Amino acid sequence: ATIAMDSSSSLLYPPPGVPKKLHAENREKLLKHLRADLDSSSRPLSGFVLLQGGEEQTRYCTDHEDLFRQESYFAYLFGVREPGFYGAIDVNTGKSILFAPRLPSEYAVWMGEIKPLSHFKETYMVDIMYYTDEITEVLNNKYQGPGKPLLFLLHGLNTDSKNFSKPAAFEGIEKFETDLKTLHPILTECRVSKSKLELSVIQYANDISSEAHIEVMRKVKPEMKEYQLESIFLHHTYFYGSCRHCSYTCICATGDNSSVLHYGHAAAPNDRTLLDGDMALLDMGAEFHFYSSDITCSFPVNGKFTSNQRLIYNAVLDAHDDVISTMKPGVNWVDMHKLAEKTILQSLKKGSLLVGDVDEMMVERLGSVFMPHGLGHLMGLDTHDPGGYLKGAERPKEPGLKSLRTSRDLMEGMVITVEPGCYFIDALLVPAMESPKTSKFFNHEAITKFRGFGGVRIESDLYVTWDGCVNMTKVPRKIEDVEAVMGGAPWPVKKSVYENGGS
Amino acid sequence: ATIAMDSSSSLLYPPPGVPKKLHAENREKLLKHLRADLDSSSRPLSGFVLLQGGEEQTRYCTDHEDLFRQESYFAYLFGVREPGFYGAIDVNTGKSILFAPRLPSEYAVWMGEIKPLSHFKETYMVDIMYYTDEITEVLNNKYQGPGKPLLFLLHGLNTDSKNFSKPAAFEGIEKFETDLKTLHPILTECRVSKSKLELSVIQYANDISSEAHIEVMRKVKPEMKEYQLESIFLHHTYFYGSCRHCSYTCICATGDNSSVLHYGHAAAPNDRTLLDGDMALLDMGAEFHFYSSDITCSFPVNGKFTSNQRLIYNAVLDAHDDVISTMKPGVNWVDMHKLAEKTILQSLKKGSLLVGDVDEMMVERLGSVFMPHGLGHLMGLDTHDPGGYLKGAERPKEPGLKSLRTSRDLMEGMVITVEPGCYFIDALLVPAMESPKTSKFFNHEAITKFRGFGGVRIESDLYVTWDGCVNMTKVPRKIEDVEAVMGGAPWPVKKSVYENGGS
Ligand SMILES: [Mn+2]
Ligand SMILES: [Mn+2]
Repeated sequence: ATIAMDSSSSLLYPPPGVPKKLHAENREKLLKHLRADLDSSSRPLSGFVLLQGGEEQTRYCTDHEDLFRQESYFAYLFGVREPGFYGAIDVNTGKSILFAPRLPSEYAVWMGEIKPLSHFKETYMVDIMYYTDEITEVLNNKYQGPGKPLLFLLHGLNTDSKNFSKPAAFEGIEKFETDLKTLHPILTECRVSKSKLELSVIQYANDISSEAHIEVMRKVKPEMKEYQLESIFLHHTYFYGSCRHCSYTCICATGDNSSVLHYGHAAAPNDRTLLDGDMALLDMGAEFHFYSSDITCSFPVNGKFTSNQRLIYNAVLDAHDDVISTMKPGVNWVDMHKLAEKTILQSLKKGSLLVGDVDEMMVERLGSVFMPHGLGHLMGLDTHDPGGYLKGAERPKEPGLKSLRTSRDLMEGMVITVEPGCYFIDALLVPAMESPKTSKFFNHEAITKFRGFGGVRIESDLYVTWDGCVNMTKVPRKIEDVEAVMGGAPWPVKKSVYENGGS
Repeated sequence: ATIAMDSSSSLLYPPPGVPKKLHAENREKLLKHLRADLDSSSRPLSGFVLLQGGEEQTRYCTDHEDLFRQESYFAYLFGVREPGFYGAIDVNTGKSILFAPRLPSEYAVWMGEIKPLSHFKETYMVDIMYYTDEITEVLNNKYQGPGKPLLFLLHGLNTDSKNFSKPAAFEGIEKFETDLKTLHPILTECRVSKSKLELSVIQYANDISSEAHIEVMRKVKPEMKEYQLESIFLHHTYFYGSCRHCSYTCICATGDNSSVLHYGHAAAPNDRTLLDGDMALLDMGAEFHFYSSDITCSFPVNGKFTSNQRLIYNAVLDAHDDVISTMKPGVNWVDMHKLAEKTILQSLKKGSLLVGDVDEMMVERLGSVFMPHGLGHLMGLDTHDPGGYLKGAERPKEPGLKSLRTSRDLMEGMVITVEPGCYFIDALLVPAMESPKTSKFFNHEAITKFRGFGGVRIESDLYVTWDGCVNMTKVPRKIEDVEAVMGGAPWPVKKSVYENGGS
């Protein structure tokens, strides 16, 4: 049932339904781990997990409403797409309770049907529904234990943003005991390993985003604007994939811009004109039912790699492939980062850009000059999913390694990006070429020719299995495949088997 | 220089450059009015207007960065697209000063080139550039008068959101006198009448959005999803028009959803499947260089109006046309709202949906049952531009009229939307049909056939001239034109003459 739109089409339309059981399973998982934790410290199995969902925001002093996107912890447990909800789980009985906002009658005129509580009960597969103005009464009534009922609230550090999650707040909270310590690490750890249903949703986000990247590859040509590539991507993932949100602002970097790691934001807004001979680095991922994808493709905008472009591209691709073939549970992510660095340095040496002993280069952290960012990050409801640093774990301090968003050992069920890159960034290259410690490693004449080259990044989303990992990203990677697809050769992205537990 | 993308193309590509002088002219206008105001109350012509630009926001506790969009008052005066700026105008000398954030050296690696102050001075045509950490020192040094230097800060009510603008805040502000009262009404009034350059930018936003609406009309068919219409619109305005932002969340309402005035938000997310026989009501507008467009087209998704659809559509179109042919400076907007209501009621009577005396219906405010929203609103940097209620003006209290975002007399240079609508909303219709005061006006049998019809809205953006007004929106409106364009007939939207004062 594909709707042909112009010459483009999709093998992935229509998008799958949302598996309703996904969030019910997430709640069960949390309950199991929370009870185990309470048990292990001889605490009573009572009280309520209580989370507050996100609220709609207006822009500055105006009535311009930003498109609402649910807070990710709340989305994990309840999957609610509407603003203004609270959600609770009774630790004793395991029952889930959603609290919906009580909407004024004008809502029906301006915003749409006021849905009955039964609608939400069915949609979100919870046990009980109330209104948000009933939280205090309901939780007090349901509480079985002695003293004030205990609320497990969400409070903890996001190690990427350094911000803290906001614990639920509501009128009457003083009638409860609150625990701000227990929930966050347990819930975060639940999010780290993905369920089969979560994987199926992430897989669809990857499928539609992979197809959209291929669509861009087929349409790109010199004289276009970077934002036109973004627009093609967004259109494909929304029109065919129903993906209204992106995982993050699209990075559509061409020419020298491809050495700007987080290009594409408002101060560098994908507005350059593509030139014949440019490399493009496109880091774009759609979000499907709250879950992310995060994919980077790099290719020459004219469809044919030069020998210099081949050298850098293959250096990065080898690093990407080496890491993927080594990944399995127990492997440490810092080691994977170093493996990627080493592969890249070896390739640059083979390509006569560097000279000398690669192990010595590693000691001097030369890899971070070419790849200042981390090799990859956990991915899920957030592009940079939480849980990258276990309690007590310290962030490495060395150049390059300090950018890692996780230092953990891999574990079955993790979804993590593998995104090595090689960039020619004057701000890093010039000091390294001048430094007495590292100057000797550079073939100064050769490397000068790469100033202005920009960079290459190759990013795929992997999930870790019991004995290895699976690449969820389905785009052409080998140079001959990239050139063929850009020339119009078929590259079908077939829809993955989608394990739909619900609608 | 059109890039063909599939079968679609655009007569409007490439988008025009941004007229640099626009914001310099805005500053001159403010300065003139502010000085006149100070003069009239015998206050000294000294001190500084100081505004704080918007800051980048992250989502909840994560490092997910929302795409930055400048605060509109700041955009009006300075046109700055980057976050973290402050801007000042010296009331005495008239000089403009921008303060840019001092970026850390890592910015060059992650976010892009650290641009020199001279870059911003040229781009934003200001007189002097400093860093934000120099505000206190600079403004103190430049101040000529006695005592502490005076800062005119922005503080005032937005009559649509009921929120207050946030006055600039910075370290060292205690070294200044601050005036929170003078600036807001004067600056708001400056925004109410648009300059030629502002009109040219709004015209382009209208041109590209008009073309995108036509693109949607040509591609719509039963079985599509509402969000696919949104996606076509967004893609056209971004790909060909470089419009990264929308003026507001797209309303793509079909069938009964078209009676939900603000459909399309996260809790009603354009996710219905189009059925043969449906009306579509598409309210979508792109933003170009901060300035809005706001356009609604209504049409049958199968391309052919039924007689019932004709009746309602023409009732609304007549209201739209009657208002436009009456608009000129001095005409009161509440009167225009009533004119639209009356035209619609007359048409419904002619169509045998209503019976009785239309003037009596007006006394009973029957128009508000079919059109509960206001006829239109000021439009500019915000979709709902500020300044709708002059100081002291009270919002009307009657049904329908109370939804008006302005009660003002029209004035040359205003840009205002004309958006009459006629909806069959059970929540309003049922009580009115049952009420002893209004029941008699309804042909109950006839009107029952329209339950589930949804609604029709026709919205254009007008600017008021010295003796009338000009419709900036260029979409087919007459039924025969709509049907022809949906059938593939040409409807070229030619690029308006663009008075570009800058690049
Ligand atoms: Mn990534
Ligand atoms: Mn409007």
